[in-house]
Amino acid sequence: MTGETQELVERYWQTTNARDWEAFGKTLHADVVYEIPQTRERVRGRAGFVDFYQTYPGDWTLELARLVADQNQAVSLTAFRANGQEQTEITIFEFKDGLISRIIDYWPEPYEPPKRASKFVERY
Amino acid sequence: MTGETQELVERYWQTTNARDWEAFGKTLHADVVYEIPQTRERVRGRAGFVDFYQTYPGDWTLELARLVADQNQAVSLTAFRANGQEQTEITIFEFKDGLISRIIDYWPEPYEPPKRASKFVERY
Repeated sequence: MTGETQELVERYWQTTNARDWEAFGKTLHADVVYEIPQTRERVRGRAGFVDFYQTYPGDWTLELARLVADQNQAVSLTAFRANGQEQTEITIFEFKDGLISRIIDYWPEPYEPPKRASKFVERY
Repeated sequence: MTGETQELVERYWQTTNARDWEAFGKTLHADVVYEIPQTRERVRGRAGFVDFYQTYPGDWTLELARLVADQNQAVSLTAFRANGQEQTEITIFEFKDGLISRIIDYWPEPYEPPKRASKFVERY
């Protein structure tokens, strides 16, 4: 169900962006689990996860930048924009019964690079 | 070429881990571009990128934890282990002429979560 998983993730982001929480909830399995490994935060269940998004502060918008999907899982990169700033969000999706059953979310932040041994590294 | 892209990325990680730089180089397009958006670092070309890996300090090992591939792109999550510590590496791959032509690498770090508006967020 490659096309199905791709369509489901596209709908997940479209409905999030549109604040259409009813349609958003329909992309999710009732037992969906959401995790942010960097903060060790977790939300269990559809109602809780819809609440997490619905109460997310700020006047944010999301733009889907990249999506890779196979039959069992998908990864998206989105540009999360709020207060004139942009952050990259990397999201892993797993599926069950044709719905999103697990979401693992990463928020990589800029950092200063270490001194590199290779002379081939340039900055941009 | 879903199977091909998947096989290529598996070979990329196997040869890296084995320090088999000749076989590693054979997974790469001559004009491969490697980027770390968090540090704005870039390496251009196969020889430079092999050098970047070959000179990477420490007694590290990598374990492929997740791989999603379609015909045009792939994303892997690897556990990068060095000096008793483990970091998650998220890598995006693009392909050209049956070889890896672009690599975008993210290194998400732990951070303290903000205060959440939703009462459904737990820590783990």
